[in-house]
Amino acid sequence: MKLIVAIVQDKDANTLSSEFVKANVRATKLSTTGGFLKSGNTTFIIGIDDERVEDVLKIIRETSHARDQFMAPPVNVDVTGDSSMSYPIEVQVGGATVFVVPVEQFHRF
Amino acid sequence: MKLIVAIVQDKDANTLSSEFVKANVRATKLSTTGGFLKSGNTTFIIGIDDERVEDVLKIIRETSHARDQFMAPPVNVDVTGDSSMSYPIEVQVGGATVFVVPVEQFHRF
Amino acid sequence: MKLIVAIVQDKDANTLSSEFVKANVRATKLSTTGGFLKSGNTTFIIGIDDERVEDVLKIIRETSHARDQFMAPPVNVDVTGDSSMSYPIEVQVGGATVFVVPVEQFHRF
Ligand code: NI
Ligand code: NI
Ligand code: NI
Repeated sequence: MKLIVAIVQDKDANTLSSEFVKANVRATKLSTTGGFLKSGNTTFIIGIDDERVEDVLKIIRETSHARDQFMAPPVNVDVTGDSSMSYPIEVQVGGATVFVVPVEQFHRF
Repeated sequence: MKLIVAIVQDKDANTLSSEFVKANVRATKLSTTGGFLKSGNTTFIIGIDDERVEDVLKIIRETSHARDQFMAPPVNVDVTGDSSMSYPIEVQVGGATVFVVPVEQFHRF
Repeated sequence: MKLIVAIVQDKDANTLSSEFVKANVRATKLSTTGGFLKSGNTTFIIGIDDERVEDVLKIIRETSHARDQFMAPPVNVDVTGDSSMSYPIEVQVGGATVFVVPVEQFHRF
């Protein structure tokens, strides 16, 4: 039995929850940081048999890895009407930090 | 020395805190998930000597285990005045997920 | 590789984050407890090579250890105008709970 602690971006947390359900992985979601203004992270805690650790890591990596995304830049009001600033910008999103820890006991009461 | 991570329902967290105090178990409570609308869970982190692990597990199990509870159903306004829908319903509440993890160092600064 | 879990008071969390950045320690900050009214704690999760564990512990201890601080007491309106109640009071602030846990795998995706 292992304990997997996975910290992902909030924006990936719902998709990851769904993938865990599909794969029959019981994950417990801790709170997110940040308040109304700041995006934060979500921590998942998973108790899993040794032979399924690689499956769980694969799900986390595929769902939450860091990747570049094109985003519309904030609208820039320009007196000349020049639209040269309106190209989409590339932003890195996602990313996961994952620990696999040995467990001596695991209980569900 | 062991690290015990216990995730319980918010509704059991206060009682569990009190039981830990009574038993002289020093537990640190992490944040709860959920916002104003959604009930969430509370995570306790406990550093404890090996010989007291079973005592801590017993406190968690007795205070936080899953159990059925009868609840008044939401009031159902019925034009006929029929009260047949107002029986209490049985709902499962509580439940705890608990990990016991080996610890190499434990400090209070 | 070790997993360090450090729980500190919210009031020390920002300073600790800065010290980790200065020392090139990659720490992930989990949520704080408490709401608008109550001060809570902040949990840091750090994956670190064995030979740097002592450095991280030193940073946590120096930044977040329990210490006494003088605080102005709440203003006490007194009909006689007696100011004898207005001495600063000594309050304990800070304090950290820290676990060092063995890690079998550590990933950043
Ligand atoms: Ni991809
Ligand atoms: Ni019972
Ligand atoms: Ni000092």
